[in-house]
Amino acid sequence: MSIVLGPNQYGKAENRVVRITRDTARHEIVDLNVSTSLRGDFADAHVTGDQSKILPTDTQKNTAFIYAKKHGVSSPEDYALALAGRFLDAAPAATGARIEVEQYQWDRIPVGDTGHDHAFVRRGGDTRTTVVTVERPGHETTGERTTHVVSGLTDLVVLKSTGSEFKGYLKDEYTTLAETDDRILATSLVARWRHVGTDSDWNKSFESVRETLLEVFATTYSRALQETLHAMGQAVLERHSDIAEIRFSAPNKHHFLVDFSAFPDVENNGEVFIAADRPYGLIEATVLRDDVPAAPEAWLATPGFC
Amino acid sequence: MSIVLGPNQYGKAENRVVRITRDTARHEIVDLNVSTSLRGDFADAHVTGDQSKILPTDTQKNTAFIYAKKHGVSSPEDYALALAGRFLDAAPAATGARIEVEQYQWDRIPVGDTGHDHAFVRRGGDTRTTVVTVERPGHETTGERTTHVVSGLTDLVVLKSTGSEFKGYLKDEYTTLAETDDRILATSLVARWRHVGTDSDWNKSFESVRETLLEVFATTYSRALQETLHAMGQAVLERHSDIAEIRFSAPNKHHFLVDFSAFPDVENNGEVFIAADRPYGLIEATVLRDDVPAAPEAWLATPGFC
Amino acid sequence: MSIVLGPNQYGKAENRVVRITRDTARHEIVDLNVSTSLRGDFADAHVTGDQSKILPTDTQKNTAFIYAKKHGVSSPEDYALALAGRFLDAAPAATGARIEVEQYQWDRIPVGDTGHDHAFVRRGGDTRTTVVTVERPGHETTGERTTHVVSGLTDLVVLKSTGSEFKGYLKDEYTTLAETDDRILATSLVARWRHVGTDSDWNKSFESVRETLLEVFATTYSRALQETLHAMGQAVLERHSDIAEIRFSAPNKHHFLVDFSAFPDVENNGEVFIAADRPYGLIEATVLRDDVPAAPEAWLATPGFC
Amino acid sequence: MSIVLGPNQYGKAENRVVRITRDTARHEIVDLNVSTSLRGDFADAHVTGDQSKILPTDTQKNTAFIYAKKHGVSSPEDYALALAGRFLDAAPAATGARIEVEQYQWDRIPVGDTGHDHAFVRRGGDTRTTVVTVERPGHETTGERTTHVVSGLTDLVVLKSTGSEFKGYLKDEYTTLAETDDRILATSLVARWRHVGTDSDWNKSFESVRETLLEVFATTYSRALQETLHAMGQAVLERHSDIAEIRFSAPNKHHFLVDFSAFPDVENNGEVFIAADRPYGLIEATVLRDDVPAAPEAWLATPGFC
Repeated sequence: MSIVLGPNQYGKAENRVVRITRDTARHEIVDLNVSTSLRGDFADAHVTGDQSKILPTDTQKNTAFIYAKKHGVSSPEDYALALAGRFLDAAPAATGARIEVEQYQWDRIPVGDTGHDHAFVRRGGDTRTTVVTVERPGHETTGERTTHVVSGLTDLVVLKSTGSEFKGYLKDEYTTLAETDDRILATSLVARWRHVGTDSDWNKSFESVRETLLEVFATTYSRALQETLHAMGQAVLERHSDIAEIRFSAPNKHHFLVDFSAFPDVENNGEVFIAADRPYGLIEATVLRDDVPAAPEAWLATPGFC
Repeated sequence: MSIVLGPNQYGKAENRVVRITRDTARHEIVDLNVSTSLRGDFADAHVTGDQSKILPTDTQKNTAFIYAKKHGVSSPEDYALALAGRFLDAAPAATGARIEVEQYQWDRIPVGDTGHDHAFVRRGGDTRTTVVTVERPGHETTGERTTHVVSGLTDLVVLKSTGSEFKGYLKDEYTTLAETDDRILATSLVARWRHVGTDSDWNKSFESVRETLLEVFATTYSRALQETLHAMGQAVLERHSDIAEIRFSAPNKHHFLVDFSAFPDVENNGEVFIAADRPYGLIEATVLRDDVPAAPEAWLATPGFC
Repeated sequence: MSIVLGPNQYGKAENRVVRITRDTARHEIVDLNVSTSLRGDFADAHVTGDQSKILPTDTQKNTAFIYAKKHGVSSPEDYALALAGRFLDAAPAATGARIEVEQYQWDRIPVGDTGHDHAFVRRGGDTRTTVVTVERPGHETTGERTTHVVSGLTDLVVLKSTGSEFKGYLKDEYTTLAETDDRILATSLVARWRHVGTDSDWNKSFESVRETLLEVFATTYSRALQETLHAMGQAVLERHSDIAEIRFSAPNKHHFLVDFSAFPDVENNGEVFIAADRPYGLIEATVLRDDVPAAPEAWLATPGFC
Repeated sequence: MSIVLGPNQYGKAENRVVRITRDTARHEIVDLNVSTSLRGDFADAHVTGDQSKILPTDTQKNTAFIYAKKHGVSSPEDYALALAGRFLDAAPAATGARIEVEQYQWDRIPVGDTGHDHAFVRRGGDTRTTVVTVERPGHETTGERTTHVVSGLTDLVVLKSTGSEFKGYLKDEYTTLAETDDRILATSLVARWRHVGTDSDWNKSFESVRETLLEVFATTYSRALQETLHAMGQAVLERHSDIAEIRFSAPNKHHFLVDFSAFPDVENNGEVFIAADRPYGLIEATVLRDDVPAAPEAWLATPGFC
């Protein structure tokens, strides 16, 4: 028996890259939070303290900013693909690179018919995300690289004020929840979807998936958050042949009907709710095609595998 | 010399009141965070422990929810006025009530031409705020009440990618900042404005002030964040005769030009920035009419006077 | 009638200053979050955009770091006094400087009898705070300066599992709260206390006040959080003749007894509680000497007067 | 090809369970944040909306509170084991249960020699964590259950003011970082360690691991954060034969030496640093025994597998 180094990765997290395109008087802004990490043959850094194979996280940071200029950011996916490829070129010991990007959306400030040329207001709401991983069979090889592109969004807060029930569930001696035919259903959705290839129209695809998620959430009668998520995932896969898999993490943001029974002059027919913080139901689910190879788990995970 | 009780107040903070109007199939949603507090002759509760004059914070909570139904929420200002009045009626020892409301905005999920009837997506971005205070000369009196209505917003994140300079400032031996003719100017604006009376069209007024703030931010050349804020405040007061005063708290969200001088093949003509977290400049200013009586400071302050 | 500039201030917020003293092998660490601001004759910056009287926030930042070395940080109060004085010297247009400091505490990692010489673990728990304001009658004057020192702490989370009641309160038609003889009382205390002069032993004084707050909270039977706070404040003033005033902001962190009445085999005699997030009672109070002049409100307030 | 349901789980997150033991006048407090989830044959809930196999998250919440009384909380691990077992009994369709617990530490308020009987102050600093998973080969089976216990901590913030270098690393054309022989090394450590069996003395084991982590961090010269983590993990495994594996997620909390070169009268010999927020290096690593079977990845992961 011996004690050995297991899975490991390192990188620079949360580089706040803001790219202004100002080739004309009508500027464009791209606002990103970029996290990079490398995996590979880095045992020496851990075991003996020898850093000779380590491309510093500071260099990774520099590269993230430089690539915002040299390569540009037509989409977070395209930018992340370029950055991952660069790191495999620059770090011979690396067998894999993982780039995660969050994108914050800005709107032009409404002045005139087309909005202001160089003044923007941050949109708020959901954040677009991307995780790109590129692997090669061994370090310093010229073999073929394997690439996974996962697109997604976080903090898409949606709510239905009716059209949602929850009943017919399993009961045990500790069950006190009353069945309901009509409740508020609300969640702050995190969704991530994996593309089959690497040449989608990333921006168009993102908008289409987001629209599908919203539309199906709105128009589907809900017997449980699980059913709603499944319908949303199924629709996304049906409409996008280049998406192999979609995953959801959906907190059930409980809105409890306030009990007015003690007040004879006030009734509450589904009109006044208290929005609760904790605890919350948490529903997590995957919808996927059964004929597409699985992706390596670790590369899809959110940062912090510990 | 003796030790005495000084200023004090108590209430229930952050009641998350969600009001659905469902008189027709086309629902409306109002989503609020309501904080209430009372001031007055409550020394007994502090000094002897006698609670007989204290209207419990739990009752304040109940009332906040009940009034969302009984009075309704045509605007946060109108709802807060009703709630403050109620508390002065219900708590004879109170000489003042202060109601603070945050309102989160929701949009209909875009389905069909007019959006879905009962499915909503949270807008994100800035939050609308209101602080209403109602005072009376003494407790249990029938004397005239004094009312202040302060409307506002928080987290309005705006950015100009050009049209901003900073130069000609005072220098001492510790100054290293280089003057600049062209920089990114960005802030996450908090603004609060005090109305002269209590019968404005609150929703229309709010939209008009918000539009003015955005428009002036966009269209004014900036020699400093101070100048921009002043121009924004002046325009608000010029366009709204019922507003006596406006206050700003504006962190200068620094976007530093990334230094590419070490990399011969990359240049940075105002195109790549790093968005910094801390430290940040913080500019706070008031613009007001010189012929309007001042409001009592404490009632305008954000909660937590300590 | 005209529109004019009202109260305003500007500065650099949240400078994260870490000062290591390494004159011997046994290092010391002081870990601060420093916010500076200036008031005075700065109307030109707002109204005409002329920055010639403005000492940039970037210079304020530099000075905060430089003074951590040149002056040192024997206590946050002493450091803040030096910094405020410096800014009045450096910015002739300033009539006042306000320095706010948060201090994070570190312990030596326990190795051997006296802890490690240069390895530390952050203590967590409450944060020590200071607000120092220095004013002069007019700018560029040599007149006498007025100084206020406010010390404090935030996030001191305390809880009593018995010895707390709440009953005998005012009831109206919306009251549903049941009276109780025995409940959990818990708060996350913010306290700030104003010193009479400027030559206290700041570190010793802070420890003594903190101990008093804890001891009185523990040993006083509570008929309401108000009564507990008052007793704590009274004790602080009785034991510290150099303290003129103390202010509290105390959220009532509700711990609700979980209702087990539906489960015949489980009882709950004050043993199982749910810690709630929102809403929460919020009690704010001041205890002060009646023979000490009041301090100017605005200078004592937390940042963000808007 | 068809579209199918993939991995899924559901449960109640962040139940804030506070358990007071008051059998004598000397109370004890246990303060937990409990998240539960179930996996298994729950496809009907997703695909057809049939909830008949679903034990509601509300029932899971009730059970978490009831078990704090019925079973008690001698340690978070022991409590989580009981809770996981209960859910497999109560939900026949479940093939696995995962319980995650955070424990917040409280100290007695120092009054007298032994601290107060029923007044406590929250310790702050790091949080103890546990993840317990119990699986069975199929649902409704009586077959043997497989159990994994992972203990851990988060937010252990440690810093060395010397004894840390970083040099000899790989350089490319985008590298600008200067090598250093002496820097501040600081991290906010997350660590999780997996036990071989299920009958350790959980509290004693936790204290011992925590002490080992601190001691090795303090006493090991660091050529990189990677080397320090590896040494910490190796020591934990050497001293604890019942621990199979330990994982770290360690942000490199950068403390940059402030550049005083522009100020002739001030020097900075490793004495004044700015603590930076973002970006930060992020080092993640595993140290494990090579003769112990791996645990299923998904069950060890933090919540939110999406």
